[in-house]
Amino acid sequence: MVTRCTLAVDVMSGDLGPRIAVPAVLDFSLSHPDTQVILVGDPVQIRSLLPERYSDQLCIESAQSVVTMADQPSFALRKRKDSSMYRAVKLVAEGRADACVCAGNTGALMAMGRYLLRMHPGIDRPALATAIPTRLGHCYMLDLGANVDCSAGHLFQFALMGSALAEALDGMEAPRVALLNVGAEQVKGNEQVKLASRLLQEHGALNYIGYIEGDGIYTGKADVVVCDGFVGNVALKSSEGLARFIAQQLRQSLSGTWYRRLVGMLAMPILSQLKQQLDPSRLNGASLLGLQGIVVKSHGSATRECFAHAIVQAQTEVRRDVPGLINSRLGQII
Amino acid sequence: MVTRCTLAVDVMSGDLGPRIAVPAVLDFSLSHPDTQVILVGDPVQIRSLLPERYSDQLCIESAQSVVTMADQPSFALRKRKDSSMYRAVKLVAEGRADACVCAGNTGALMAMGRYLLRMHPGIDRPALATAIPTRLGHCYMLDLGANVDCSAGHLFQFALMGSALAEALDGMEAPRVALLNVGAEQVKGNEQVKLASRLLQEHGALNYIGYIEGDGIYTGKADVVVCDGFVGNVALKSSEGLARFIAQQLRQSLSGTWYRRLVGMLAMPILSQLKQQLDPSRLNGASLLGLQGIVVKSHGSATRECFAHAIVQAQTEVRRDVPGLINSRLGQII
Repeated sequence: MVTRCTLAVDVMSGDLGPRIAVPAVLDFSLSHPDTQVILVGDPVQIRSLLPERYSDQLCIESAQSVVTMADQPSFALRKRKDSSMYRAVKLVAEGRADACVCAGNTGALMAMGRYLLRMHPGIDRPALATAIPTRLGHCYMLDLGANVDCSAGHLFQFALMGSALAEALDGMEAPRVALLNVGAEQVKGNEQVKLASRLLQEHGALNYIGYIEGDGIYTGKADVVVCDGFVGNVALKSSEGLARFIAQQLRQSLSGTWYRRLVGMLAMPILSQLKQQLDPSRLNGASLLGLQGIVVKSHGSATRECFAHAIVQAQTEVRRDVPGLINSRLGQII
Repeated sequence: MVTRCTLAVDVMSGDLGPRIAVPAVLDFSLSHPDTQVILVGDPVQIRSLLPERYSDQLCIESAQSVVTMADQPSFALRKRKDSSMYRAVKLVAEGRADACVCAGNTGALMAMGRYLLRMHPGIDRPALATAIPTRLGHCYMLDLGANVDCSAGHLFQFALMGSALAEALDGMEAPRVALLNVGAEQVKGNEQVKLASRLLQEHGALNYIGYIEGDGIYTGKADVVVCDGFVGNVALKSSEGLARFIAQQLRQSLSGTWYRRLVGMLAMPILSQLKQQLDPSRLNGASLLGLQGIVVKSHGSATRECFAHAIVQAQTEVRRDVPGLINSRLGQII
């Protein structure tokens, strides 16, 4: 199925700004000639990074300011209506774009998403979901930091949206949904998680498989892993930190003596391939679920290649109509 | 400094029971001839695993039952007074042992610790703390699952106990204490963490360095990482899960073609050494802090070598008088 679509990309907000985002858009547009991209930001900077003659797939939407990582969401929403982030989300709200991609301040992006796109009826808060590599492929984990305090009802809504995401993106019929907990037994956990488990069991609409512990994320036991944003953020970032630590120790192990250096040289192509395979940023592009429109959040420090992956993610969500599927699942359930 | 001490070891409660624990005690006693060990459990099983003539450092304390992982803490406390776990903690309470080691049900161990040893005045709940390898050595993280819901006051108490632990075990003067959070900025986090941060700042007695994110655990920025038990448990277990996943993918990468197998053979000694260095179970032995006595919790699935490490950990805590130091720090602060 090929659907023509238009994506709005905020090229200003990431840690490395347009220097990464504009080349990523160029890479994407070359391999996706059927997709229009609106580059949102400072036209002078954007033009300086585009070739003299560029494809008519691309156009520029001017935005005068940039939301910084230090801006409070409420401040950004009130005072940065001329920012690249606000303009990119607004293009989706106005129907001029089918989705937007942004590497900036998550809280501000969430606030603008809620204000401009509105929530699905039945969903209280947007949740940030991303794919995580596992032994059997990948799973989706949510929430990853959009909501630091969650009730059982919120966790239930996250389960519903995560299940619809896996269904839409991977064509699964009944994705296995698990709640992240400190033990596998029914008595374990805090009140919110225990109550969410009861809600999921009683409701019966999802393929709920019960609790998994932190080490279960990577085994492929579940297709959707649900937790509050505090726990999800810490789990994801501590995993990233450990992966970097292991990589650094491995590099160090393969230096020093001539034997170690030799083994290092011989192992290099194998290790590079493995690194790429396991790199969480390979699956860059977290979805802000629950909004009546598609917003994809790129990692702030994404490389050109990873930023391009986030744009592909947005395009896929448009083609599979993720918000439409969430809406229809909500209609059936709530 | 050499202090003679006596340790009570529950040899029945781990996943592999006395088959692992008794050999671990034997290994430990050979290398620590100045320490008495009381093996607590079924005398018939224990004797069958001891050599015919064994050192008079060792003696057996009979216990008729074993607490299982499925037992509720309250049930274990009421109905398992004849268990190896209860008897081991009781030996500490009676002053017949200076510390105990147990690989069983954490909740039950905590309940028995609170009941038999009592809390330090000023501490509401015991916290489980363990050493985690970092780029610069290790840090201590707490709580790791003893408390799934924590107030700001509890986090403050954990910070105090973790700091005393680092001071006692590593001889640090002012261990750097950090709160685990979803961002480094002051505005980030849930209410408990923000309030705990204010308490630590205002109090000024500890070397509080602010928030760290999940990836900061492994960089060595902090000597003590404080979080609630839900977050700590998920962070630790998801890191363990990722480490296993990476190791499995690495093994798979070094098999298949002859070139890959050759590199695998050459790299094997280096990778084994690295694995041992990074293995979290190498630092096996979590401390139940806040009790007026020393209780060390071993990983349930610890190997003989790792179980022996937990016994060494208990001995070190006796020598450095961890409860005494926590008590004196509490006296100065509260």
